[in-house]
Amino acid sequence: MIKVSVMYPNTPGARFDHTYYANQHMPLVKRKMGDFCLSYTVDKGLAGGTPGAPATYIGMCHVFCDSVESFQAGFGPHAQQIMGDIPNYTDLSPIVQISEVVVG
Amino acid sequence: MIKVSVMYPNTPGARFDHTYYANQHMPLVKRKMGDFCLSYTVDKGLAGGTPGAPATYIGMCHVFCDSVESFQAGFGPHAQQIMGDIPNYTDLSPIVQISEVVVG
Repeated sequence: MIKVSVMYPNTPGARFDHTYYANQHMPLVKRKMGDFCLSYTVDKGLAGGTPGAPATYIGMCHVFCDSVESFQAGFGPHAQQIMGDIPNYTDLSPIVQISEVVVG
Repeated sequence: MIKVSVMYPNTPGARFDHTYYANQHMPLVKRKMGDFCLSYTVDKGLAGGTPGAPATYIGMCHVFCDSVESFQAGFGPHAQQIMGDIPNYTDLSPIVQISEVVVG
């Protein structure tokens, strides 16, 4: 299984609507990807690792798929619509990473 | 519920023993934290978000706890031993973030 992590840097002054992200955007991703998206999680950054330090990422999601090919098959056809929804909740550009789920 | 994400930057030339991390280090964390650690996941970075791009993080773990206080209660007394194990699998310094689990 693989995980696609989408991580939004916690840039001072940036806009990020956590409610829209969790209640509108991620359900849209799941609806468009269908069974290619096995599940997903959503995080809201609270703090960094040392006292008083800010979170590195203001928000993250992790999309779980059987394989990279499975992600591409589910996301690719809807990429334009899904990416087009991003300005509805943020003006940030995310960092994207694909990982192998070693312990799930 | 909160999640403590520990993310190791994918620095060229750095050392990272994925087997030790998954089979020795993370079980040590769980053993020391006991029930304060509800569960954990381990990721191995495969790729970035664009073709040919490297993963931003070579490895990550996410430790799930009831609260920040619960994490501190479980991790704090064993921090020295757990941190002391890091050189056994890497020469990298991780980025740490605490997040609220919005969708788990």
